[in-house]
Amino acid sequence: MTTTTVPQKRRAEDLTATALESKIAEQPALNGNGVATTNGHATNGTTPSSLPALDASQLKITLADPTLRSVPTVEEACSGLETICTDHMITCSWKASSGWAAPELKPYGPLSLMPTASVLHYATECFEGLKVFRGYDGKLRLFRPDCNARRMLMSTLRISLPGFDPKQLEILIEKLMAVDGPKWLPESRPGQFLYIRPAAIGTQPQLGVQAPKEALLFITASFMPRMDLPKGGMKLHTNPEDMIRAWVGGFGYAKVGANYGPSLLATNEARERGFGQILWLYGPEGYCTEAGASNFFLVWRTKDGKTQLITAPLDDKLILDGVTRRSIVELARERLAGEVEVVERKYTIDEVLEADREGRIVEAFAAGTAFFICPVSQIHHRGTDVHISMGKTGEIGHYTSKLKNWIGDIMYGKEQHPWGVVIEEEKKQ
Amino acid sequence: MTTTTVPQKRRAEDLTATALESKIAEQPALNGNGVATTNGHATNGTTPSSLPALDASQLKITLADPTLRSVPTVEEACSGLETICTDHMITCSWKASSGWAAPELKPYGPLSLMPTASVLHYATECFEGLKVFRGYDGKLRLFRPDCNARRMLMSTLRISLPGFDPKQLEILIEKLMAVDGPKWLPESRPGQFLYIRPAAIGTQPQLGVQAPKEALLFITASFMPRMDLPKGGMKLHTNPEDMIRAWVGGFGYAKVGANYGPSLLATNEARERGFGQILWLYGPEGYCTEAGASNFFLVWRTKDGKTQLITAPLDDKLILDGVTRRSIVELARERLAGEVEVVERKYTIDEVLEADREGRIVEAFAAGTAFFICPVSQIHHRGTDVHISMGKTGEIGHYTSKLKNWIGDIMYGKEQHPWGVVIEEEKKQ
Repeated sequence: MTTTTVPQKRRAEDLTATALESKIAEQPALNGNGVATTNGHATNGTTPSSLPALDASQLKITLADPTLRSVPTVEEACSGLETICTDHMITCSWKASSGWAAPELKPYGPLSLMPTASVLHYATECFEGLKVFRGYDGKLRLFRPDCNARRMLMSTLRISLPGFDPKQLEILIEKLMAVDGPKWLPESRPGQFLYIRPAAIGTQPQLGVQAPKEALLFITASFMPRMDLPKGGMKLHTNPEDMIRAWVGGFGYAKVGANYGPSLLATNEARERGFGQILWLYGPEGYCTEAGASNFFLVWRTKDGKTQLITAPLDDKLILDGVTRRSIVELARERLAGEVEVVERKYTIDEVLEADREGRIVEAFAAGTAFFICPVSQIHHRGTDVHISMGKTGEIGHYTSKLKNWIGDIMYGKEQHPWGVVIEEEKKQ
Repeated sequence: MTTTTVPQKRRAEDLTATALESKIAEQPALNGNGVATTNGHATNGTTPSSLPALDASQLKITLADPTLRSVPTVEEACSGLETICTDHMITCSWKASSGWAAPELKPYGPLSLMPTASVLHYATECFEGLKVFRGYDGKLRLFRPDCNARRMLMSTLRISLPGFDPKQLEILIEKLMAVDGPKWLPESRPGQFLYIRPAAIGTQPQLGVQAPKEALLFITASFMPRMDLPKGGMKLHTNPEDMIRAWVGGFGYAKVGANYGPSLLATNEARERGFGQILWLYGPEGYCTEAGASNFFLVWRTKDGKTQLITAPLDDKLILDGVTRRSIVELARERLAGEVEVVERKYTIDEVLEADREGRIVEAFAAGTAFFICPVSQIHHRGTDVHISMGKTGEIGHYTSKLKNWIGDIMYGKEQHPWGVVIEEEKKQ
């Protein structure tokens, strides 16, 4: 046995999850010529910094015939087994040997992948979800797309796909909506939204278990049903002890495919029992983490009578740093100061059960892009049911409603706010 | 708060990981008409048992022009960035509404997937890996394909894809090799192998997070380099404390894509430091679990002088139930009885370091389909290196060599054994 240090060319922390932060900091920014500049470190361990970076200004546009497809109602679009997308998608391909190719905006259609493509075997994949809103003032808005773009970069690096300047992704998202927004989310549909899905996948047709040397980033926009008002509220079922979603030292904080597929078995079973989502607990303590694929919030009164808005913390990297979560925490701290204390800390299902027995639970809700802010009416935990008030209306509690309205008003342009990013549309119909 | 039981139509254990075992038992067998018969439970929660099951006898065959592609040497085939597959592949598509379609054997080529396909976002994917061997007696053999087919079923159900009768998968694998074996692994290449990759993916083009209602099972055969004799032996680097592979209550025991992509970050970094794979430790105790994507074995002397072959246990479902691992355990128990004690139990990296300080480590190796039985020469753990003997030859230790030869002899037909399954080839070239 000998005692050594690792080769000095590598930094001590490079093997750790913490290394992700330095990798993110190393991402190239454009130098004006579409060429990446970095501080000298290779990105993804493979791309020399002199290769082309992702550059939205190089976008090649091939438009679809706009008469080929008509725009369905949301109900029609969401009635089948297939997600209905808009006329176009954006694709950006990358190779370790040549960097990012020019992005393309082109007619929506299938991708061709070799059966040996990395993503089909090794889950080298990650994604984002954000919405575009048709405001009551006629304008098209994104909600904090910078947050999604930065998180996409983090997820991409976590799953060993190539990095990029998040600002370029943001510009590409805006471009897709500038082209498809006027037709697919017209001014005649104020208060409606489309769902934008950026995704990145490893496409190298190589079965060796390794970081892909070829990748594709693509962006689609589609219809999604409203999910924030399930009849009777969202009902949660806690996970069984022998099936957990994420773990410390894992990747629960990254929006990688690997967090989703393995959770479907429990979610399906909960749905067959009449519950909407799993409330994922962690560890022998039973810490409350996420509700399905959304963040989870409780409003309760503490034993000394304070009103608290509580949610799981980010520091142990178990849960997703949700954009809706973040916005709720920030707005509640700003606008409910003195009235409601906002707390991000670990708390257990036993604390929830105790608060329920003592009549201290005020409201609960799930928060995420898909479910927006969705009232929770019930939590089932191993034979015990916690029933939670849905407010005087029976539809949504007081604080849940306030937070939802504030954020909704920013999304739909009722409140002018820096979080609502207006898209300049190509032409309005 | 009220106390309830879950609706009685669902069994109490259905939400748990244990439920997988009953789901596996419920899988349909064919009734002779290509129609599944089950004990009455729906499979995948969606398929009525009256829908067609996977039925190899329905195989539709479309042959490629055999003159279009010539067969490279292994070296040529493995020199590029792309896995080289044989002339054909088998695909089997499934829909929740119509069950399994007739399988197809057809020319190898790309798959067409919608950008919204489940597999590209939610890692609804799993696979198997097995080899086909050209024996020294001229015959083509699989090694225990029944084990791979049964594990594939388990992985498929774990990731919420549709079940099937594993025997049908086995027949399809044999069929692909019966057609492609004579050309791509000819009798002139005794002692060589091809790598067979069955995989299943969720293809439903639907962004809602749910079990896919459409899926594709496909099988390819390809060249893979020999990886069992790296110069100087395999060198392992333990994972950092803040990045672990699998966890109790997770899916480390299933061959699902979600186990692979997230591990690439640590593996890449270890490779840049000159190590071949990560030795994945688990928990604050630092239990040794897997070496990269292979099982890990140590031969050591106990404090009381016994020679032991030790490997991590299966019961906590952290590690893969490897076919090579299982074969090693079974053969060692049978053929090394009285000489070597075979132990499947949790053991820690500290036990390994202590054994090394006391000069009790005899040999170590990784075991899996890709790496076969690969000697390990070094383990680096947080500044400390354990150097392990590679035997008198400097290439492979005594016990490692014995086990490898026994299994190799079965694979290549030097020993006639029930584990070696001979394929009846369509025509020999």
